Formats: sequence, C-alpha cells, structure tokens
Amino acid sequence: MYVDLLIENVQMYNSYMKKFNKGNVAVLDGRFLYMGDRGQETFEAKSIVAGEGRYLLPGLIDIHLHIESTMVTPETFSYGLIRNGVTTIVPEPHEIANVFGLAGVKQLMLASEHCVADMFYAVPSSVPATSLETSGGSIEIADLDELLQTEKIICLGEIMNYVDIISNPDCKTNHILDHIRTNYPNLVIEGHCPKLLDLDLHRVIYAGVDSDHTHQTIEGMEARIAAGMFIEIQEKSMTPAIMDYLIQHEVSEHFCFVTDDVMADSFQQRGHLNHLVRKAIAMGMDPEKAIYASTFTPARRMRLHDRGVIAPGKIADFMFVSHLEQMTIDQVYKKGQKVYDVHEPYVPNATKYTFPAHYYQSVKLPLLTEQDFSVAVPEADGRYSCRVMMVQDGSTFTEEYQGEVAVSGGQLGWQASDYGLIASFERYGKNGNRAYGLIGGDTIKRGAVATTYSHDNHNLLVIGHNAADMVLAANEVIRNQGGFCVVEDGQVLANLHLPVGGILTEEPLEQTAIEVNRLHKAMESLGYRHYNPIMSISTHSLPVSPALKITDLGLIDVNAGKVVPLLIQAV
Amino acid sequence: MYVDLLIENVQMYNSYMKKFNKGNVAVLDGRFLYMGDRGQETFEAKSIVAGEGRYLLPGLIDIHLHIESTMVTPETFSYGLIRNGVTTIVPEPHEIANVFGLAGVKQLMLASEHCVADMFYAVPSSVPATSLETSGGSIEIADLDELLQTEKIICLGEIMNYVDIISNPDCKTNHILDHIRTNYPNLVIEGHCPKLLDLDLHRVIYAGVDSDHTHQTIEGMEARIAAGMFIEIQEKSMTPAIMDYLIQHEVSEHFCFVTDDVMADSFQQRGHLNHLVRKAIAMGMDPEKAIYASTFTPARRMRLHDRGVIAPGKIADFMFVSHLEQMTIDQVYKKGQKVYDVHEPYVPNATKYTFPAHYYQSVKLPLLTEQDFSVAVPEADGRYSCRVMMVQDGSTFTEEYQGEVAVSGGQLGWQASDYGLIASFERYGKNGNRAYGLIGGDTIKRGAVATTYSHDNHNLLVIGHNAADMVLAANEVIRNQGGFCVVEDGQVLANLHLPVGGILTEEPLEQTAIEVNRLHKAMESLGYRHYNPIMSISTHSLPVSPALKITDLGLIDVNAGKVVPLLIQAV
Repeated sequence: MYVDLLIENVQMYNSYMKKFNKGNVAVLDGRFLYMGDRGQETFEAKSIVAGEGRYLLPGLIDIHLHIESTMVTPETFSYGLIRNGVTTIVPEPHEIANVFGLAGVKQLMLASEHCVADMFYAVPSSVPATSLETSGGSIEIADLDELLQTEKIICLGEIMNYVDIISNPDCKTNHILDHIRTNYPNLVIEGHCPKLLDLDLHRVIYAGVDSDHTHQTIEGMEARIAAGMFIEIQEKSMTPAIMDYLIQHEVSEHFCFVTDDVMADSFQQRGHLNHLVRKAIAMGMDPEKAIYASTFTPARRMRLHDRGVIAPGKIADFMFVSHLEQMTIDQVYKKGQKVYDVHEPYVPNATKYTFPAHYYQSVKLPLLTEQDFSVAVPEADGRYSCRVMMVQDGSTFTEEYQGEVAVSGGQLGWQASDYGLIASFERYGKNGNRAYGLIGGDTIKRGAVATTYSHDNHNLLVIGHNAADMVLAANEVIRNQGGFCVVEDGQVLANLHLPVGGILTEEPLEQTAIEVNRLHKAMESLGYRHYNPIMSISTHSLPVSPALKITDLGLIDVNAGKVVPLLIQAV
Repeated sequence: MYVDLLIENVQMYNSYMKKFNKGNVAVLDGRFLYMGDRGQETFEAKSIVAGEGRYLLPGLIDIHLHIESTMVTPETFSYGLIRNGVTTIVPEPHEIANVFGLAGVKQLMLASEHCVADMFYAVPSSVPATSLETSGGSIEIADLDELLQTEKIICLGEIMNYVDIISNPDCKTNHILDHIRTNYPNLVIEGHCPKLLDLDLHRVIYAGVDSDHTHQTIEGMEARIAAGMFIEIQEKSMTPAIMDYLIQHEVSEHFCFVTDDVMADSFQQRGHLNHLVRKAIAMGMDPEKAIYASTFTPARRMRLHDRGVIAPGKIADFMFVSHLEQMTIDQVYKKGQKVYDVHEPYVPNATKYTFPAHYYQSVKLPLLTEQDFSVAVPEADGRYSCRVMMVQDGSTFTEEYQGEVAVSGGQLGWQASDYGLIASFERYGKNGNRAYGLIGGDTIKRGAVATTYSHDNHNLLVIGHNAADMVLAANEVIRNQGGFCVVEDGQVLANLHLPVGGILTEEPLEQTAIEVNRLHKAMESLGYRHYNPIMSISTHSLPVSPALKITDLGLIDVNAGKVVPLLIQAV
C-alpha cells in the first residue's frame, strides 16, 4: 500500500511498553501508520529513509514554560526548539499579558501560528499578579471566556496565589476557579504551590488545581502525587534525592519534565527540554523513563491525545538520535516532514511576524534626570531605620533588613549609605506612579542597572549606587522602548534591546544569547552574586515572591500583602 | 473547618500509589476534600461515620456494556448497579437504536437521567449493523451530530465493521470515522476487532479506533497494547493465561474490566463489575490492581477526570468493603450520600419513568397462522440440498451446513426433515418482509421459541419444529408487544414480556431474573445446549457474526456479506 514515508531499521521507542523495538516505521498524511517488520515488500513509499539502527524518539513536549523568559519571539523560540527535538509546547504568556492584557496573549498566539513547533497555550490566570502594582493589562473572567473559545488554549495557566485560595474565599483567584469549574469542568488547571502540605495542599487540589511545577522536596512530592497532583519537574527540582525517588518508585505516570524559564544563552549552549532528558539520564534514570517523562506523560497531562507516542494514528513528530545517553539529535521531523538535519544548514524563516506598531512603543515615560532619583521624605533631619531589600544569592526571595540612613533637607541620603537605591516607574502612561526603596546584599555594588523586563508588571525598574549612572541606564532603556541596560561610571557595559512590549527582542537566538551573556557578565562585574542575575533582579518587582519587593505603588511586604513605608523610625 | 461527612478509621484505596492507607476521609459538597490523619479536632462534621478499619474503595466504573442485554430499564439497572458498588457506567444503546433510532437513544438517556448511578453514553456507530436487514431505526451522521451536542455522550460506541474500515474506503463506517476525526478530534472511539493483527490492526487504530473489548489472546492483546489500544477485559477474556499476563506485566495503565452483556439472572446472582473484580482476585490478581482496573483506568479511558479515585476534588462515590477478597459490600455512597446499606431495606424508586405510548406498541404484526410457517419454494417436487444454520455450543458463530430436505407441491417439507425452521418477520410495519431458513445443531430439538429480542434488528424471530407451537409462541410475543416465549406441545413453558420497544421489561430485577432463568430452563428442556441459550438464539439474526445468519431479507452469508438462497440444488 502507498505511504508517504518508510523508515527502515530503527530502534523505535514504544511508550506503552516503555522500551525500544527494532523495526520499520511507515508514515501517511503526517501520522504514523505502522511500526513492525514490514518494509518495501508491503509499502510503496514516496520516500525511504535508512534508519541505520539509530534510535527513533517521539518529539519532546514541554507543557510548562514562558517564551518571554527567553526574551525572543515565538518564531525564534520555535527555531530553537526544533533543533533540540522539541515539537510541541504549552507556553503560559503571563508576561505579555501584564503588558497588553488579552490583546497581548492573542498577539503571541498569532505570532506562533505559523511556527514549526506546535504551540498550544495556557491562559494566564493571575494577571496582574496582585493588586499592589500597576500593569499594562489584566486578565479578567470575561477575557478568560474569550480566550477559551480558541482551541489553541488548552489549560488554565499556573494559579500563583495558592495562599489566597485557602485564606480568602472572595479573592479573584477563587472567583476564577469557581468560574472555570462551573463552565469548563474538564479544563486542566495548572498550579504553583511551593511547600504546601496536608490539609492546605488538599484544599488547593479540591479547588481544582492539580499540578505543581515548583521546587520539590521528597515529602512534598510524595504527598502531591498521593493526593492526585501531576508533578512537573523543572531543572531546579532535579536534585539527586528527587531523581533517586523518581527512579526507584513506580510514579512514572505522575510526573514530567518542564523547562519553565530558559535564558537565551542557556538555550543556545545547553538546549531545551532535551538538556533535562540528558541530565536525567546522566543522573541515573533509564533513558526509557526519561523519554516517557518528556513525551508521553506531558501529552497526556494536557490531553493532547494525538501525540507524544510513536504509534498508529499519532502525529508523526519524531527525531533520529544516534547516541541515546547524549541525546545526540541527527534529524527532527514534524508531521512526517524533515524540519532539521544536523548535516544541513539550519536557518530561521525568512518571513518574520510583525507585531502591531504600538507594540514597539510601549514605554510611555519621558527621559529621566538625576532629580528623579532624589528621594523626598516627610521627616526631619536625622538618622532613620529604613527597610532594606536584602538580595540572597541562589534565591529569588529577598529578606527585609533594617538599615540606618541619614535624612537631610527632606532628602534621603541613600548615596552616602551602605545601600543602593531601587526605584520602580509606572511606564504605561496610566498614573505616573513611582516608588523608591533601598537594596543591599548580593546585588550590584556600584554602577546601575535599568530594565523593563521586571516581573510581572514590567514597569521600569532601576537599581544603582549613583544617580548619574541610573539616569544613563534608565534613559537608554526608555529610548530603546524596552530592554536591559548596565552602566558603570558613565559607561554602558551591556544594553539588550527588548523593543516588543519592552520584554522581547526580534533578534535571532544566537545574537540574543550573546547579548544575554554580556548582560550576565556586566552585572557580575558590578558585584552581583547569583546563579542567574537577570532572573534575580527581574523578580525584585514580583510581589508574590517573599519577602520585601517593590512595585510602582511602593515597597511591598509580600507575606503581609501590603505596601509598607521605606522609613520605619528615627534612631 | 466544616465538612459534610467525616469517615474515621478506614483502609482507603490510593489509586496513584496503588495501595491502601489507614486514615480518615472528609467529604464536602459531594466531593472528597481530605484524606489523612486529621479527624474531629480539625473538622466540624455534619455526619460522622465509623469506618471500623474496613476498606474504602472508589465506586466501580463500567465503560462498556449494554443495558438492553439485561432486558430492564435504566432505573432497574441502576438499582442493580448500586448495590454492587457500580456508581458510573457508559452504556452503548445500539439495541434500542435499532428499534427507534435517534429517538430511542434519547429516550434511554432521559430514562437514566434521574438514576442514582451516573450513566454517560456511547453513541452507537453501527445502526443497523448491516444493510442486509430492516431495522426500526438507524443512526446516520446527522444523528451523531445531534447526539454529540449532549454532554452525556462521551464516546463513539463500538465500531463493529472493522473489516470494512480496511477493505472498503467508501463504507458507512469510514464515513462516520472521517466525520468524527474531522469534527470531534478528541472523541474517544471504541472498538471491536477480534483476531486482528499486524498491519490490519494498525490500520484500524490509524482510523481512530483505539480500544478493543472482544475476546483476547496473549499475542493479540500484547500487539494491541503496544500499538496504543486500550483493552477492555470482559469475563470471557479472563482466561488463566490472560490473567497471568496482566498480573505479571506492567500494563496496568492499558486495561480495565467491563461487563458488556450481563443477563438479569447473572446480575441478580453474581453481581456486576464487582463480580469480575472478585474473580480477578480469585485468579491471583492483587486486589490493588483489580480495583485500579475497575475504577481508575476506565475513568481515564473515558476522560471522566472527576471520578474513579479517592482524592481531593473527586466525586465522592465510594463503598465500604468488609472483606476485600470477597468484595463484601456493606454500604455504597454516591456523591457523598449513602445510597445502599446491606443492613437496611433496599427498594427501587417508587416513581417510575414512563416511555411514550408508542414505545409499548412497537410490534406491528398481525397474529400469525400455521400458513405463515409454510415455506413456498419455486422448485419442482424432489429432494434438495439446502443451507442449514448449524448452532454450536459455546459460540455465537454458526456454521453453514448442507442438508437434504424434500419439496412437495411447492412447499418445503421442513417438518419431516432433520432440521427445525427459523423465520424472521419484519415487525416495524415497514415492508412486511419475511424470510425462512433451516436450523440444526445445538438448538432446540422440539417445540418452538419466538422473540423480538433478536439482535440487532429485533424483528420477530421464530424457531421451531412444528407450525402449531411456532404460531402459539409467535402470537404470544405479538400479543405482549414483545418478549420471549418458549412452547412445547401447545403449552407455554416460559413467557417473558418485553413491552418497551419489544426488548425491555419494566418489572423489577428480581422478577426479571426469575423469568430469565425460567426461559433458560425452558430452552434447555427443549434440548438447547449452550452456556447462554438466550444470547445464542438472539444472535441468529446478527449478520456481523459468522457464518450463516438470518434476517427479514433472507439467509445471510456473513463472510460474503450477502443474501444467499435456502435451496442450493436438487440432489
């Protein structure tokens, strides 16, 4: 019988038996038709490919990630995915939703429509993250309803405010969950619930949230699985203890690997979900099990029943791998068509998706002056104990510290203090809000950093030790209509342009990787100590991540969920 | 916190870990909220139940069965299910669809709406089974579309004509499959594909059919699972070899138990899906695995993600079991409410669903006379070799045998032959078709049997050895507007009334069980040899089951798929 493609002599992965089988594979109309011993005596194939005994794996499926974390457009992201064997993703676009609301989500979906990798979407559920900030857009229940009409939306994205679910029956999150459970009872609801256990955990699951992708502990993960949660293992959860647990226990049905946030330089150097598979194997997991957790279980979790498997009727997304443990990818096929070959030139699409004009004009701020970094306080001259945001190496959490700073002539003497200044400027032209705080710990020791990449509100965040450098960094970002600028002594050390909504670049992945790496190095040269300085600094404005953060409304005590004053008392 | 129900001290089944855990369970608003060590110190419970260390199991879920096989209404069926711990079923109503078409399916769904057991439906895909018969109704693509608008329809019922899928691109089944794949790509499609292997099997799966509930062999089952099929194990597949395979291999995710057809007497005496669980345990399967296959995997197969598990947020359908291996059911709860207690009277609902008036007037035939059993043939006097339907003990298949019968005066001398007469009378008032054949083998040796219960067309089927008894049996069934009547020497031995569409009774299950048992015994007293004479005789008119069958259009050579003459040639 006629088939489009016959692949001879491969070791193909069978997801149902979790093992490799030798044989041939036939593809018809973009779907697998047959796998077994039959070959050219049975099939009249338009195209025949010699497998040469290599491994044939289903395309990888990543069900929890944020494209915006890589700071590139969906097209560029897809280009990066495909060469790493990732053929389907479920991005959660809450960053662009914070900038443009519903319209931003729709634009990202439009931009991904013609990508090679399939992109289904999680509808962001927590935009803005809190009411303690001004964002460019929000996602309300009516927006959810509109988005859920499109078949590319397949789940409700991570519910961030897990504490609210339990403690505040009348919060926005509970209204959204009630609405979803009532109107879309079969919709997958993705969670985010670090450290939750026992009754609190069960109450969150009872509310409909039945996955977790945060950093896992053995006790927490076991409790989650036993209570019906699906576990999404991101790289920071791949500790030896967690991996040993996953290897030794029969919990294969209950977890998958996800990338969550991949910086452009890491994407370029280490790859994507394939990097996690490779790492899992290196940590002792059987390749069969690691592949299962990056193809079969993520597809099933998202009810993508048409893929993730090499079996009759399933979409023919697959890759040839010559060295299994190394995950050495020779070729990648999407819907039965070759889309990547390590031996051939691999270039991005010539035609680029263009966003509407106002997406490139989203930073509505005048150029700043040194006056904008003078912090007026309504107190008499003297020394005051102040709240200081203490940055910790290795964490996105900050601590609140009480430090002494002088006040003179109604001005906070931050430049002569032990601390830097951190400022947030509302940049959507809504209210002109601005707020100031003090910063210390493992942050920059000199110079300045400015960015619109600040999570989740993406207002202009500026951190520095002198007003001149802060003005220079901030104005570079304003002139570029978004980006990340690092300055020292009047010199720009790094300057990443993010012109799309102030959060994405249209540059190729390779170039972005270089720029991001330069940014890392520049921040490190100013004394920033963190495994990911960009992520660390960007979350200083994220008021759902403890303990002291800043938004355009002021310093936020995250655990108390309120704005707190910079000055505490005279000392 | 407030809960509706607190159950203390049970051994509760955890589906995710496939094991029992000691503890307490809290229920709120019909759903499980919590399971663990917390008790009255945490929960203010409206009702507290002492578990006394007994087992707590999820309600059983049966995803492939035909209510009509039990010959009772959905209400009666639900009554029988609940006391056996079966809380959710997915019936496939192709019998009533053959009688009343789309309207019949809707009526059955209406009749099941207020039942205690949840009934989701499979939309019948093969009605009528072939074009070689006259049925009361049919299900066309427009009917499928209409039915699929109701949320109680959750899958496409068993695709019977698996051979057509492969051999006839233009057949009705392929049109239906194309339509479903295009318009309802996520709809579960249930299969029926005995003996299929290799490329043929893969082609049927490629067409979208990815389950099989027919009699399994080890080789066939392994091939099905490896190719992505979900296996539904009915009792006849529970051979020691199959059970050993399921016990020894890691295929728990890929199979469940189903009842398919349960006769009323078996339902009454042995139970329902719980009987299969008990039997599986007796055959060496761990209770944990047997429970998994009758709760978790069937729910997941049908994408009933809200049930089948004792876990937060899941519907609180469960039962107390005092002896696990025996599956001794003490109490059954539906949505957190007690609906059965072995220590309390258990009575059917007082209010009964009433079908529309014409459902009780569906046998549109005048009373018959002996003349109706005279078989006129267009041949001269002499002896002729004739096709004889040979019934085989233990099978629903028949064989075609060539036997000699005399013709005299234009009449077939069947009464003086070695064979009985089998006749089918179209009974929907459509065309007055009738057809005659000869029958031998393990069937009745004397007297007569008449029934409208004949699969799938439900025309009036009459089998007998003398015209007088056949007239008596047939007219009893016509007068009763449907049923099953066994006659010997002018005496009615058994007479089951099936007034609803000629296929269902409104009598209680207990009474129906007695009647069905009387029917068995009566048929056996006439010499019928089969483990299930009712099922055997009813499938004599099923032209998808080899080899020689009869419909109102004539004798059917099932393998050739055509009508064949009774007389072959003069001898």
